[in-house]
Amino acid sequence: MTAVLVAPGTLEPGAVLDLAEAEAHHLRVRRAAAGERLQLLDGAGGVGEGTLVGAGSAWRVEVTAARREAPPPPLVLAVGAGDRERFATVVEKAAELGATAVVPLETERSRNVAGRVRPAHVERLRQRGLEALKQCGGAWGPELSAPVPLGAFLPAAKGARWLADGGGGSAPPLAAGEPVTVAVGPEGGFTPAERAALLAAGFLPVRLGPRVLRFETAAVAAAVAVHLRRGTLEAR
Amino acid sequence: MTAVLVAPGTLEPGAVLDLAEAEAHHLRVRRAAAGERLQLLDGAGGVGEGTLVGAGSAWRVEVTAARREAPPPPLVLAVGAGDRERFATVVEKAAELGATAVVPLETERSRNVAGRVRPAHVERLRQRGLEALKQCGGAWGPELSAPVPLGAFLPAAKGARWLADGGGGSAPPLAAGEPVTVAVGPEGGFTPAERAALLAAGFLPVRLGPRVLRFETAAVAAAVAVHLRRGTLEAR
Repeated sequence: MTAVLVAPGTLEPGAVLDLAEAEAHHLRVRRAAAGERLQLLDGAGGVGEGTLVGAGSAWRVEVTAARREAPPPPLVLAVGAGDRERFATVVEKAAELGATAVVPLETERSRNVAGRVRPAHVERLRQRGLEALKQCGGAWGPELSAPVPLGAFLPAAKGARWLADGGGGSAPPLAAGEPVTVAVGPEGGFTPAERAALLAAGFLPVRLGPRVLRFETAAVAAAVAVHLRRGTLEAR
Repeated sequence: MTAVLVAPGTLEPGAVLDLAEAEAHHLRVRRAAAGERLQLLDGAGGVGEGTLVGAGSAWRVEVTAARREAPPPPLVLAVGAGDRERFATVVEKAAELGATAVVPLETERSRNVAGRVRPAHVERLRQRGLEALKQCGGAWGPELSAPVPLGAFLPAAKGARWLADGGGGSAPPLAAGEPVTVAVGPEGGFTPAERAALLAAGFLPVRLGPRVLRFETAAVAAAVAVHLRRGTLEAR
């Protein structure tokens, strides 16, 4: 069944919803036809099913079933706002792996990256996360904030705090629903001063692989380690 | 220090080595100069340092130090030979994460993928793994085999055997250096018959994330889970 995104909070049985142009375009490419059954996702906990009504550019979807899922436990990936193509990979994988937020961190070394993430890219990155959500059927997409300086981010960091760091130890145990924030440096890593600020803010250096990881690999590895340490990947 | 690949087994102090054209090209792009110090890797356990001698298209490297590292414990990622761009990502991440071999599996559903991995792509994929090795400084690159039918691969699978499977349980414990083989289906997954053959061959279904993972994400997640379950990411 094809998955389609709808606006957050609009999924109510019986509702007839307009489709965003991007969604209608996907359906045209797939040669969808009126009467087709669709999976519906709003990226904010709403999951449902519906039927395509109308035709061509005037397509709408009639909601036949809807439910709300509870949000997953907080997993914030705060990642150096480096190369935006590789950052887009982080957002895509964050959606697959159930991260609840991705924060692009402005750091000393991310400022040197020519293709770095800038405020104008945030909406596009958010869309990339929602597209990934359609692939994996998740109810909640990761929130995406505008790039924020590391110093402004640190006081707001919550829950268990990990710093992806080749010099760290193994990922520590976590309680099942424990909120986690993971900081990952950009290309070239955090500077020594930034690392000191992270440690002072309670971030624990955690080693996520046997070799130096690229930042997008470290973010994925961190999300996997959080799930394993929470013990929440038991058989369903 | 720039890392340069040399032919396997050639790293001996005092040796003067020719550089492959691809390596010489990288050095020209980086405007390297004679006398520059280089990190040397042979992808097969050889790690060293050297000095660039000669000039331009006649560059060679004089080896000043060399050592051999023991191979990491076997970690075989056997992955459906799907879209070759995404498969190349698997090879790159396999190098970063210390996998020892990547096997492209011919499966029923990988045969339907237009841009699937074919024998002609293997050398290019191997190079991609070696390039990644330069980024992460690893001594051993992943071996890459030609695409092999699942049925031919199964009898040769060794060590602990995991099947990446959303219906499985959490990754089980492993001994520190325990060999592991992980099977990951292509786009659309393994067929029920293939899954049955994997189970009959001793593969244990293991759930690697909270949602449906793309195959390249599942391969990365599996490698991370293996390291965590082996307990080999303690502080160095």
